[in-house]
Amino acid sequence: METGLDHTERPRRGRRPAAEVRAEVLEATATLLAAEGMRAVTFDRVAAKSGASKTTVYKWWPSPGALAAEAYFTLSEADLAFHDTGDLFTDVRSQLSSFVRLLTEQGGGRIIAELIGAAQSDADLSAAVSEQYTMPRRRLAIDYFERALDRGQLRADVDPSLLVDQLWGACYNRLLIPDAPLDVRFAEALVENTLTGAAADGYRN
Amino acid sequence: METGLDHTERPRRGRRPAAEVRAEVLEATATLLAAEGMRAVTFDRVAAKSGASKTTVYKWWPSPGALAAEAYFTLSEADLAFHDTGDLFTDVRSQLSSFVRLLTEQGGGRIIAELIGAAQSDADLSAAVSEQYTMPRRRLAIDYFERALDRGQLRADVDPSLLVDQLWGACYNRLLIPDAPLDVRFAEALVENTLTGAAADGYRN
Repeated sequence: METGLDHTERPRRGRRPAAEVRAEVLEATATLLAAEGMRAVTFDRVAAKSGASKTTVYKWWPSPGALAAEAYFTLSEADLAFHDTGDLFTDVRSQLSSFVRLLTEQGGGRIIAELIGAAQSDADLSAAVSEQYTMPRRRLAIDYFERALDRGQLRADVDPSLLVDQLWGACYNRLLIPDAPLDVRFAEALVENTLTGAAADGYRN
Repeated sequence: METGLDHTERPRRGRRPAAEVRAEVLEATATLLAAEGMRAVTFDRVAAKSGASKTTVYKWWPSPGALAAEAYFTLSEADLAFHDTGDLFTDVRSQLSSFVRLLTEQGGGRIIAELIGAAQSDADLSAAVSEQYTMPRRRLAIDYFERALDRGQLRADVDPSLLVDQLWGACYNRLLIPDAPLDVRFAEALVENTLTGAAADGYRN
């Protein structure tokens, strides 16, 4: 029965705007994720930490994994902004270097590796990570590459989505299968290789 | 005490060459992996299925994960052979297409995704997957690219290890984060992009 008087939603602070509560839940989740990893993200602990009611958290997120994925998106959004200065090499190098630093120096790698790892045996988590984190990030990169295509900076037949796998995907590969170092030097060589091509001049298909 | 008379190692068939027993254990493991996934790979079930003793299996492999990773390497070795015809584009396209078919049409994807997924929260498994599967495969690709470098087919400043992440790593990305299709068409475009470069002719750094 919807009475509009569900006191369990506002246990301590009275009625607050939904957007504010939502932001606080995401921030509390991000803090738990960064400090203790995925296992800390339970609706109980998130509710306790954010001051939101468990009812609210249950109503807004289908699972702790979905909440964790969205919190990671929010947490990383500023660091991963895709600046468009109009210079393809500079913009991609700058974004990819920030991405690698977030993974390696700012603790993002452990969180995202845990999310993607657990998603391999949890279809709901896989869908949540995709919807809340990886697809929105892929979309931002594709938007940038579509502008670069319009500017004539990419070959007209290049699939922007494929570039996402060649650049960020290659970094995820080194994160998840740590056989070779993931660092800014790698990111920069990756951009150079991806845009310029690895084949020797004059050796073409 | 090593008496050379450890009957528990030969429960049913008498003394057999170690290499033969080893191959049978790997084959039994591969069969279990393909049919039921990682959870089926226990030393008990592998011993029962292969006819080797549990003592032998325990002696030769540090963990079921290490055994699974080696079994997957053996299982996939023929399909993933890196043929060197001397034509860089053809060889890489052919190997990468076989790799994608193994992952998508021959059931390899589920096994490797499960191994890499579980490795994110299990350092021993991560080391085993690296040692038994991903590093040996990376080495084979690097060997090929070093020959291509010697033939002058790759730019002299290209890092062969980085090409592994751009090609196979990009495929693993689509396997583990299924936001875009992993298929042979993708593999072929990936080879073209990686070798030829995505930047428009005349637009260079």
